[in-house]
Amino acid sequence: MNLTEMGKRATAVKYRLQALTTEEKNRALEHAARMLREHASEILTANARDLQQGRDNGMHSGLLDRLLLDSGRIDAMAQGLEQVAALPDPVGELLESFERPNGLRIEKCRVPLGVIGIIYESRPNVTADAFALCFKAGNAVILKGGSDALASNRAIAQVLRQALEDCGIDGDAIQLITDTDRAVTMQFMRLKEYVDVLIPRGGAGLIRAVVENSTVPVIETGTGNCHIYVDKDADIDMAIPIIINAKTQRIGVCNACESLVIHEAVREALLPRLQKALAEKQVEVRGDERVCAAMEGAVPAAEEDYGREYLDYIISMKTVDSLEEAIDHINRYSTHHSESIITADPAAAERFLNGVDAACVYVNASTRFTDGFEFGFGAEIGISTQKLHARGPMGLRELTSYKYRITGKGQIRG
Amino acid sequence: MNLTEMGKRATAVKYRLQALTTEEKNRALEHAARMLREHASEILTANARDLQQGRDNGMHSGLLDRLLLDSGRIDAMAQGLEQVAALPDPVGELLESFERPNGLRIEKCRVPLGVIGIIYESRPNVTADAFALCFKAGNAVILKGGSDALASNRAIAQVLRQALEDCGIDGDAIQLITDTDRAVTMQFMRLKEYVDVLIPRGGAGLIRAVVENSTVPVIETGTGNCHIYVDKDADIDMAIPIIINAKTQRIGVCNACESLVIHEAVREALLPRLQKALAEKQVEVRGDERVCAAMEGAVPAAEEDYGREYLDYIISMKTVDSLEEAIDHINRYSTHHSESIITADPAAAERFLNGVDAACVYVNASTRFTDGFEFGFGAEIGISTQKLHARGPMGLRELTSYKYRITGKGQIRG
Repeated sequence: MNLTEMGKRATAVKYRLQALTTEEKNRALEHAARMLREHASEILTANARDLQQGRDNGMHSGLLDRLLLDSGRIDAMAQGLEQVAALPDPVGELLESFERPNGLRIEKCRVPLGVIGIIYESRPNVTADAFALCFKAGNAVILKGGSDALASNRAIAQVLRQALEDCGIDGDAIQLITDTDRAVTMQFMRLKEYVDVLIPRGGAGLIRAVVENSTVPVIETGTGNCHIYVDKDADIDMAIPIIINAKTQRIGVCNACESLVIHEAVREALLPRLQKALAEKQVEVRGDERVCAAMEGAVPAAEEDYGREYLDYIISMKTVDSLEEAIDHINRYSTHHSESIITADPAAAERFLNGVDAACVYVNASTRFTDGFEFGFGAEIGISTQKLHARGPMGLRELTSYKYRITGKGQIRG
Repeated sequence: MNLTEMGKRATAVKYRLQALTTEEKNRALEHAARMLREHASEILTANARDLQQGRDNGMHSGLLDRLLLDSGRIDAMAQGLEQVAALPDPVGELLESFERPNGLRIEKCRVPLGVIGIIYESRPNVTADAFALCFKAGNAVILKGGSDALASNRAIAQVLRQALEDCGIDGDAIQLITDTDRAVTMQFMRLKEYVDVLIPRGGAGLIRAVVENSTVPVIETGTGNCHIYVDKDADIDMAIPIIINAKTQRIGVCNACESLVIHEAVREALLPRLQKALAEKQVEVRGDERVCAAMEGAVPAAEEDYGREYLDYIISMKTVDSLEEAIDHINRYSTHHSESIITADPAAAERFLNGVDAACVYVNASTRFTDGFEFGFGAEIGISTQKLHARGPMGLRELTSYKYRITGKGQIRG
């Protein structure tokens, strides 16, 4: 099917989705969860085809693991749908209401965005996760997954469509682009007439390509060059486990710490102890001169190191002589995702919270908490690193817009 | 100065603007208002040059009027700054606060967007208005006005910069692009590294050009193909003044009514009376067959008429047999700006409010109320017709983003 036709179908279904009750949506999500479990063998068969093709094409093991489904992962997808069903419905929420002197009554109400496009890479579970969040927030979704995962995505989408139709809901609420031609993806990014918002989910290259080519409004998600700043009044015993957690608990995620900023006053107390802890995890340190002087095994950092999201067992380190210098350094190199200060001084914490420009600014905690589940949103579609619309973890509410409902008694403008 | 340099300057100043107190901002706005009045003669001299050049280039009278400044209009600009000074400061507002089971305390706080770019046409007052709103919301602004108004804009911006500097604030909080080369405007739309959001203010052509070429996130403002639907249970005595007001009170604005949708049951009662009222204002009617049959002087509408924003003394009219048909017709041709139903039936009103997809949906009132002042926002930067970030009239709050401030006691992720 061509994209214009898909856009028309999404538009035709979106107003019907907006009118579904919470119960109707939840029933469909729960049924879809059951269906995923019941049809696990078909999904695994399709996934085996994707994996075989990946191996034939020489795909490396990390990517093959992302692509892999097994019954545990299918069950996790199903559980994801059930969790979204259990979340409160954002649609219809009254955000504000006020009356004007002329008697007009104005209500600001939460409404779905309409049609959401998602462009993602090789994890097939995104097909179910993204559908569930968009659907619960009352939106139609058009998905474009990685071509490596096409058979898996097709099988999952087919089950989800069938589940909707079993519940009397138009299956076009979820549509999957199956044409792997790059020109089709480009056209998708310009399907402004039918798509209200595009959300890219993937690495920096994918996100950049979407931002540069899209005429549809984009929510930019995710790259994180996250810093931890150890202040002169930091509790070193607290700093070390936070740094180890943020750097090494999962290295490939956007909220992992990539750079440490150290106040000169704690440099000599912190670094030798930190070196031991990092060495246990085999983390390479790239530091400035003062860092290298205090830390065995550290190698000199190039200026570019401070701007890098390593997603690896590497950390850059920079010494500063003041809190202000730390804030300036972070604002300069940050991707505005998650930044943390370790300090026992409330005034320093406040200056850091105010001065650092990021979606999430932490005091005495790991940057790893930037996550929809950890924030209590129940689920997330991604972490926004832009300032328009939504910033930080994006749950159901961030997949909505609002409208003003104005009720009068014949008022005209003078 | 080249754009990259302007971007760097805006970035350098933006964090300082975010730290200004409400009092510091208000004092600067009030001083800028005084300065505009004091320097009126220089601004008028510059404006005379723009007008002369416009006349030399054969600019038509409507455009010349938009370009024209006089002491009344300069005073209105100054009053605009004073009004913005009097509005509440949105920056720092605590939007939400909650504690997680692990003891992390999360606060969602309103922060400035950062650097806002505005691209506008020939009205020089936008230079002062846009600056005031962006500045009060804590943002640096880079302005690109119409080349027709360059001398006027330059004079106004110079006064505003001076006023800021008199108050100890860096003048780079307002920068004006004076290079009228089209390539520079294109480069401005791709200044993603330095500009957080672009807001085009002007006609459909300008907005389309910005949406298609920008890599900076855009807030789309403005075109309005606004409908009034006269339901079968409408009070005709209420409908007529509303239609006349919405169509004719100001024809060139985005919230003017461009199309009327009429339930068959009221067609014969409404149209002859409406015809008289519209004829007095010399409004041309383009209608379907049933409209033409009931209305003297109406000419047949082409299908394209239903999608047109006339901005003129012309209105299209369409007959429908049900409320649902009216909603479908409006959702098909609407620019999702402002739509109104005239009805005495609360159930019909509710279905219209829910079913019509627009920033502002009215019951028994003129579409002309879609306006920041009329909504009580005190001022507006424009009317958003997109669903991302802000919808409808955009005041100070819509020129902000938020950040999460998270305070812990050493929490790490398990």
